[in-house]
Amino acid sequence: MSKIIRVGIIGYGNIGRGVELAVMQNPDMKLEAIFTRRDPGSIKPALDNVNAVHISKAEQYKDLIDVMILCGGSATDLPEQGPKFASLFNCVDSFDTHARIPEYFNAVDKAARAGGKTAAISIGWDPGLFSLNRMYTEAILPQSKVYTFWGKGVSQGHSDAIRRVQGVKNAVQYTVPIDKAVNQVRTGENPELTTGEKHLRECYVVAEEGADKALIEKTIKEMPNYFSDYHTIVHFVSEEELRKDHSRMPHGGFVIRSGSTGQNLENHHLAEFSLKLDSNPEFTGSILAAYARAVSKLNREGRTGALTVFDIPVGYLSPKSPENLRKQLL
Amino acid sequence: MSKIIRVGIIGYGNIGRGVELAVMQNPDMKLEAIFTRRDPGSIKPALDNVNAVHISKAEQYKDLIDVMILCGGSATDLPEQGPKFASLFNCVDSFDTHARIPEYFNAVDKAARAGGKTAAISIGWDPGLFSLNRMYTEAILPQSKVYTFWGKGVSQGHSDAIRRVQGVKNAVQYTVPIDKAVNQVRTGENPELTTGEKHLRECYVVAEEGADKALIEKTIKEMPNYFSDYHTIVHFVSEEELRKDHSRMPHGGFVIRSGSTGQNLENHHLAEFSLKLDSNPEFTGSILAAYARAVSKLNREGRTGALTVFDIPVGYLSPKSPENLRKQLL
Repeated sequence: MSKIIRVGIIGYGNIGRGVELAVMQNPDMKLEAIFTRRDPGSIKPALDNVNAVHISKAEQYKDLIDVMILCGGSATDLPEQGPKFASLFNCVDSFDTHARIPEYFNAVDKAARAGGKTAAISIGWDPGLFSLNRMYTEAILPQSKVYTFWGKGVSQGHSDAIRRVQGVKNAVQYTVPIDKAVNQVRTGENPELTTGEKHLRECYVVAEEGADKALIEKTIKEMPNYFSDYHTIVHFVSEEELRKDHSRMPHGGFVIRSGSTGQNLENHHLAEFSLKLDSNPEFTGSILAAYARAVSKLNREGRTGALTVFDIPVGYLSPKSPENLRKQLL
Repeated sequence: MSKIIRVGIIGYGNIGRGVELAVMQNPDMKLEAIFTRRDPGSIKPALDNVNAVHISKAEQYKDLIDVMILCGGSATDLPEQGPKFASLFNCVDSFDTHARIPEYFNAVDKAARAGGKTAAISIGWDPGLFSLNRMYTEAILPQSKVYTFWGKGVSQGHSDAIRRVQGVKNAVQYTVPIDKAVNQVRTGENPELTTGEKHLRECYVVAEEGADKALIEKTIKEMPNYFSDYHTIVHFVSEEELRKDHSRMPHGGFVIRSGSTGQNLENHHLAEFSLKLDSNPEFTGSILAAYARAVSKLNREGRTGALTVFDIPVGYLSPKSPENLRKQLL
């Protein structure tokens, strides 16, 4: 390996911390600085000697950082930060608002090209590794259907929605794939499944003292978009119980491609990719770190603009040379 | 979509037929000709109007074929055909002798570069899709182990080995992953497993009339390399039973990456890719066809030489534009 890849992190929440831990596992990478909107002194990085810097000074690190990993949210942070930083740094982000990806891609692409930089957008496991699997299995099996199941895992959006209900103090919501549907897909039946037939929603809710629990439960279950189309289970728990049993961030899911070949489509094939993660942000951070390596190599080769998991040869993710990859992993 | 990709097939065995059926499923591809060492008149393609041609005339098709798919065996066909045809055509092959891949890659690379052609080698599911999964999950989780299980499926090499035993008329051997080992891996225990702890070998054998079945069974079970390290089960069946119940070519398997993140490696993650195939050659043929599309695009962009699954962005496998892939599959 030649030179160390100098990484910067923008935004030190769960994902930012996951990236920091991932960089520590990769001897060809070094964490140069963490950039934050908060008071840098208030940041407690996992590593003692990490440089925490106010985000307003990021531009001063232009020549000190090879890849900036953007760990902000997709709703408001990334639409602004993505194009801004892609004009200054090679970047990786986990933009995950599916519907707005084309628009976001174009904005980042334009900025990155103008700055001679490379930016990998929408990196993570969905969008990301799941997209990769949906895509290549579709190309291989044109006569097929694909099914994506998520969970069992915590959905931040749904947990937030419950917390906004009157009388709710705190809440955690798990998205749970329904076994019956998963098994139907795995047998190759290619069923048509409604969204509510694929997943159920299990909620752990801490009510405020004296709150009307029956009303809270009804309000959650009838909430449009979030819960009304699903079988929803509500458990009331104590604040302590919630902290003790539901403060980790496990997640996972599976992409199942079910297709047929043969002159009369008589042969059936199933390809499945699944993840079972103890910590969603740490695994996501590990993916972002590997793609940071790819972005750094691609930029050195003169490739600029925005890229997704579809555009990046997976060999670029590895610290190993192409020769070693062929020898050891092919 | 722009122009139709004109495909040639070299070698019309099980894989060649699988490729033919795959090309039929892809509207942006056309099968131009099948090349064979046999009498072309003896070939019975799945499609009535396919052009069967003697392999000695392949070179005459230099301007008529965009990608040649080499469907010969890895032992003797491909080491000769790979470099030869890569100097004349864009090529895809399924070279699968793991130990000889570096040497084969170099020979094909040299020939393809000299001819201005692009050649994807070792395409299929292992080597191929399984390698892809072993590789990117390693890059994402440096602190991890990977386990590959094959089966339940027919191993041609092991079936052949049994057929060479005195008194054996015919035989089919299934490689079967051992549930106990698979489950151990799935729980994240990261066990050390010997080859015999991972798979067992189940043999369906037709004995010649009057043959000593006890001796056949003993000879099989004690055969070095092939069976002596494994729990081996031998069933004697009639020729008819073998034809009726064991003439399909199912296969499959799984790649399980088991790794950890966190400051004290306290969070565990499992990524699994699995295949369950009714027809190994038809699925393999479908992979080869998708990579033929990629090779054709890459050559049009000026990329020449040998490539593997590690080098080819998966987006190139699809007939869809990058814009549509981002919109529909990311």
